[in-house]
Amino acid sequence: MNRRITRAIRVGQVPVGGGAPVSIQSMCNTDTRDAAGTLAQIRRLAAAGCEIIRVAVPDLTAAEALREISGASPLPVVADIHFDHRLALAAIDAGAAAIRLNPGNIGGVEKVRQVAERAGAAGIPIRVGANSGSIDPALIAELTAAGMPLAEAVPEALVRSALEECAQLEQFGFTAIKVSLKASDVPAMVEACRRFAGRSDYPLHLGVTEAGTRERGTIKSAVGIGSLLLSGIGDTIRVSLTADPVYEIPAARRILESCGLRQAVPELVSCPTCGRTRIDLMALAEKVEQLIDSITASGRRIRLRKVAVMGCVVNGPGEARDADWGVAGGDGKLVLFRHGEVVGTFSEEAGFARLKAAIEESAEPQE
Amino acid sequence: MNRRITRAIRVGQVPVGGGAPVSIQSMCNTDTRDAAGTLAQIRRLAAAGCEIIRVAVPDLTAAEALREISGASPLPVVADIHFDHRLALAAIDAGAAAIRLNPGNIGGVEKVRQVAERAGAAGIPIRVGANSGSIDPALIAELTAAGMPLAEAVPEALVRSALEECAQLEQFGFTAIKVSLKASDVPAMVEACRRFAGRSDYPLHLGVTEAGTRERGTIKSAVGIGSLLLSGIGDTIRVSLTADPVYEIPAARRILESCGLRQAVPELVSCPTCGRTRIDLMALAEKVEQLIDSITASGRRIRLRKVAVMGCVVNGPGEARDADWGVAGGDGKLVLFRHGEVVGTFSEEAGFARLKAAIEESAEPQE
Repeated sequence: MNRRITRAIRVGQVPVGGGAPVSIQSMCNTDTRDAAGTLAQIRRLAAAGCEIIRVAVPDLTAAEALREISGASPLPVVADIHFDHRLALAAIDAGAAAIRLNPGNIGGVEKVRQVAERAGAAGIPIRVGANSGSIDPALIAELTAAGMPLAEAVPEALVRSALEECAQLEQFGFTAIKVSLKASDVPAMVEACRRFAGRSDYPLHLGVTEAGTRERGTIKSAVGIGSLLLSGIGDTIRVSLTADPVYEIPAARRILESCGLRQAVPELVSCPTCGRTRIDLMALAEKVEQLIDSITASGRRIRLRKVAVMGCVVNGPGEARDADWGVAGGDGKLVLFRHGEVVGTFSEEAGFARLKAAIEESAEPQE
Repeated sequence: MNRRITRAIRVGQVPVGGGAPVSIQSMCNTDTRDAAGTLAQIRRLAAAGCEIIRVAVPDLTAAEALREISGASPLPVVADIHFDHRLALAAIDAGAAAIRLNPGNIGGVEKVRQVAERAGAAGIPIRVGANSGSIDPALIAELTAAGMPLAEAVPEALVRSALEECAQLEQFGFTAIKVSLKASDVPAMVEACRRFAGRSDYPLHLGVTEAGTRERGTIKSAVGIGSLLLSGIGDTIRVSLTADPVYEIPAARRILESCGLRQAVPELVSCPTCGRTRIDLMALAEKVEQLIDSITASGRRIRLRKVAVMGCVVNGPGEARDADWGVAGGDGKLVLFRHGEVVGTFSEEAGFARLKAAIEESAEPQE
């Protein structure tokens, strides 16, 4: 896959754009004024694999709490600000690693200048964005009046709004910009990001807004974020769920893994069960997954690239050929493979025990 | 979105290709020889929204059981056959609505002729396919020796294998063909389908093989199937999970919904919670989702297009503007919207009660 070339910025120690790995973000749902509670959530998110964290800064008390949060956070902290430029200035002074703000809604060019200069002096980037929920209806009306279908007018309006936000910062020489174009409608969000990618080299933050509850939101995000990543677009992602934000992280990681942008260590492939299956493949695959997850959660790394749990010999040996270790089911038996070579045929219990031992032997402490 | 124009075929009463709605498939994991057990699973899958069902036919007893299954099944039944053309002939005679078989692995041109003629006489289609797990390594080696990178050689080999399977049927004038190109690697599967779509107008069955356990498999399938559907490719889909196949159906439906190819009735949008949220939005969104699901599961249809559950007034009114009914949270209060107009401000309890009543009033028996 050829990734789109974007400008490089940095959010704290995390590079975004310019060919850097696609990073995973989330947003705290704590009250930012509660620094201890917010830090506790940030630590849980960091342990799950989050790399950049955003917090809401609705008032000056929250901006002040940022000082403690930014100082102790294991992740770079982005301050999310609406309407009031003084909150942005205070957040920058309090050590925010980045600001999320739309210049267009803070009340005029002089305030934009102050924010751009203060962020520039602090050396931190600003994320601007457009969201289908807050876009100017007059712009959409203008585009449709000119003959553009609504399915194109919404993405086009998102792109123009975002470019206008960028321009407001650029007039003060500020270009450490990251852009998000969000919609709850997946095709609109995907089309907006594709259009933007054709007109600008600012790095893109991908996300589907109002994605929904855990199951629905995960699927919407996987479709929208995944299809952009597969075409090389996207520098940092957030899976938005109406759920504990800690669930956003494995979902984001699995989207990156699915796109070949991050290596699951090891990748576990298993086939759907069908009438050919003569063993309890689901139970076996779940057991192997739990084993891998428990080793990973204990902070160890498994030095295997791929493990295959296959139901039968029709697809089994072929898929297992490509795996470091694999099993394929037979009549109550498991054929064990290592790098595509048959190791032997075992009872289910003995076969799993052999596979388990092989996985455990390949685990080692992480540096 | 412009959908790719494909040839139209029919699997029983379900049109596939030629602009027909993208249909949802699954595969039984029962023993097909157990007709009663297989029919029970088919009925559960049909109730969940499955539209085409495949069953494994590993022997003649299974092919014979197809007679009872096909006769009583509420869904068209596809017979999945490997290696033995007599099973295909028996399955066609037993009333299968379609055959899944690769001409290349049934043992020669005369057997292919028999299957093509029998399927042609019965007026049923054949699905052929290529799977990265069973592809000829010599073909991949040939392509890479000619200088093709492996990331292109695997998809290209899948496409050539599938076209060769098609050609084996075409030589007997048989063109009621559906094609699948599957891989457990999502970028390879997506690239293979894109390449095939550029060279053939046979309808495509989309799926990621060995996608994995429920959570991982859903995300891989959403990325792979979703990105193809968003670019207009795909006529029927299967989400393969190492799980009870009934879980495949809501996942498939939500992928179609995310791509704008099927209308969730109603669509439920909710925002991720953040530090701005002053109400328990997760609990509220889950309650609304459960209400909608329970009404739908009772066989009634909700005559609303969109319901929005928003955490705060920053994005709330904008998103809610586009919904039939919406709520946005305030300080322990809910602002209720109808078509973007404020109905009033209520306590959380009273606001949910109003929303619940509105949703229930819009439910009606399905025809």
